[in-house]
Amino acid sequence: MSEQRRPCVILHSPQLGENIGAAARVMRNFGLTDLRLVSPRDGWPNPAAETMSAGAFDAGVTVRVHETLQGALEGVTYLIAATARLRGIEKRVTDAVGAAKAAHGRSVAGKGVAAVMFGGEKSGLPNEAVALADLLMTYPVNPEFKSLNLAQAVCVFAHEWGKLNAAENPADYPSQSHVTPVEAPADADTEGSPPAARDDVFRMFEHFETELERAGYFFPPAKTPLMKDNLRAALIRADWTEQEVQTFRGAIKALALGRGKARVVRED
Amino acid sequence: MSEQRRPCVILHSPQLGENIGAAARVMRNFGLTDLRLVSPRDGWPNPAAETMSAGAFDAGVTVRVHETLQGALEGVTYLIAATARLRGIEKRVTDAVGAAKAAHGRSVAGKGVAAVMFGGEKSGLPNEAVALADLLMTYPVNPEFKSLNLAQAVCVFAHEWGKLNAAENPADYPSQSHVTPVEAPADADTEGSPPAARDDVFRMFEHFETELERAGYFFPPAKTPLMKDNLRAALIRADWTEQEVQTFRGAIKALALGRGKARVVRED
Repeated sequence: MSEQRRPCVILHSPQLGENIGAAARVMRNFGLTDLRLVSPRDGWPNPAAETMSAGAFDAGVTVRVHETLQGALEGVTYLIAATARLRGIEKRVTDAVGAAKAAHGRSVAGKGVAAVMFGGEKSGLPNEAVALADLLMTYPVNPEFKSLNLAQAVCVFAHEWGKLNAAENPADYPSQSHVTPVEAPADADTEGSPPAARDDVFRMFEHFETELERAGYFFPPAKTPLMKDNLRAALIRADWTEQEVQTFRGAIKALALGRGKARVVRED
Repeated sequence: MSEQRRPCVILHSPQLGENIGAAARVMRNFGLTDLRLVSPRDGWPNPAAETMSAGAFDAGVTVRVHETLQGALEGVTYLIAATARLRGIEKRVTDAVGAAKAAHGRSVAGKGVAAVMFGGEKSGLPNEAVALADLLMTYPVNPEFKSLNLAQAVCVFAHEWGKLNAAENPADYPSQSHVTPVEAPADADTEGSPPAARDDVFRMFEHFETELERAGYFFPPAKTPLMKDNLRAALIRADWTEQEVQTFRGAIKALALGRGKARVVRED
């Protein structure tokens, strides 16, 4: 997708440069590059933003600063407003997935630029800005702890955009080809015995490895960490129950004791 | 869902207190409360974490500090590792949605605690930690700008968890009841004329409101902002094309001129 068609992010009256920089960074992480600031409190450029951006501004994120929202809306044909309060305004409301799809649909249809707009840290978007939006975007934030950091709010949308972008450009995102959906609980049928706590499984591994070490299994020494990782990676997939951990540890113990006995026998 | 069943978040060797605090904040935003730190570089407690948490630690996020990963895995029966590099380890890989569903499935099935583990800022998770995981979680991060901030990485998972949590507890998340999915491009059938840029629509509103103002439409003055917001909210839903903006502005102009003439007629 060409740069021009990607949605832009508008921060309306942001306060902290740190948040602007962190927003730019996560935009770049997920393939967004057009950042527009409406009257940032501390002006622009902002050294704190530069620091927190981790180089995003040099890596393609462009920043334009506007005194008014109107200026920031240049070329924008579809406006999404991030808001926690729905304010009784009669508008369509969606979540981050829906907002990313709406923005993406605009882009694919070649219908100009979509914008996602976030309000400042103190009070979010003013009503007159929300009134201009085509679509409201809301996140399932805990009503008892509502205050989402500005850059985190950008992150949630950016990630959803990134998913669509990666799906459309699979060659650029090779690691995504390994992703499989999880629709059901990932554990299938361990009825009966409850699952083992991971620290028990950890101890089981240590027990196993200690005995393997004694048995001279790990050779050459340089390869020991890799051998252990591979062993653990294989075993962990078994999704152990408590009962199975007991059983396996019993087996290790038996082998270890048996080896000891066998050696004793030979040595005697 | 009881607190005990929610997934815990493990930060393995985190460096910056700021990131730990920001992670705690976004956990609380999306309903997570169990944070476990494995050998945080700057020890614990950490004033920078406190500052960035926005009160999350007082609002329910518990922190436990462990010297080793094994300690942090107490009670954990399902381990998800966040990793950008897939390292050739033979494990199932999923995205944030799949990871949240897997963790949620564990919880619902009463099968103990799932954990989502993130590596430190510098180098991510060590191989021996990844080897212990049941499931790898990967995000569609831009390969040219891969370095996702630690708290942002936590944010992406936490948001997916929050969606499941809100869907399960609709009474606690009333705003979510307004959310409608967006499956297709949100604009339906504006073939022909291209969509209007939002700054054009903005100017159209201002034109309209200026003329309404002159016409004495906005009364009483205290209600003017609300009246404007409602008007804009209604009109914006029309998803204007360039042609329609032209047409509507023509109409306003005509009305305004007409009124002027009418008045002139009367005054004469």
